[in-house]
Amino acid sequence: MANQKLTAEEIHTALVELNSDASQDWVIEDGKLSKTFKFKNFQQAFGFMTTCALYAERKNHHPEWSNVYNRVDVQLVSHDVSGLSVKDFDLAKKMDEFAGSIA
Amino acid sequence: MANQKLTAEEIHTALVELNSDASQDWVIEDGKLSKTFKFKNFQQAFGFMTTCALYAERKNHHPEWSNVYNRVDVQLVSHDVSGLSVKDFDLAKKMDEFAGSIA
Repeated sequence: MANQKLTAEEIHTALVELNSDASQDWVIEDGKLSKTFKFKNFQQAFGFMTTCALYAERKNHHPEWSNVYNRVDVQLVSHDVSGLSVKDFDLAKKMDEFAGSIA
Repeated sequence: MANQKLTAEEIHTALVELNSDASQDWVIEDGKLSKTFKFKNFQQAFGFMTTCALYAERKNHHPEWSNVYNRVDVQLVSHDVSGLSVKDFDLAKKMDEFAGSIA
């Protein structure tokens, strides 16, 4: 099945579910699913990015992100549907898992 | 010897030398040494970032950067001297080399 754009209601539901985990801090900013991850140092931050990159490449769904030393700012969006899709929430959940296994 | 903040004249000289290589597109933006690298795809872009990350970690001098799919925006600055230092120009030169070996 093709990727589908989530409705506002579906996004709300998915966001509540996503934030029911430990982190609690995914937000929708400029239509993108966003979160700032902080680690102990650059090594941990880039280790996190590498794990995410391998997953993203396998799923062919990539984050928009920036890194300054121990900090990684993530923005997720599905350009193919001009909005958010289940792929973004799947990647967000995985990122939380990956971060949790490092920090 | 401690890291030292470069003067405006030293920055100008270093920038001309840096841009005498193939790339020609390092600029000073908001006091930071900046460049946008573009690759064929995410795999190449993140491969570039990984090589840079290992070098940065070894030198203990890290880039500020963001990545969207095949694009990597880099900003270099030396927070320890509140300006640019030779470390930034060294890292910039290495990044050009790393990018050249990938693209």
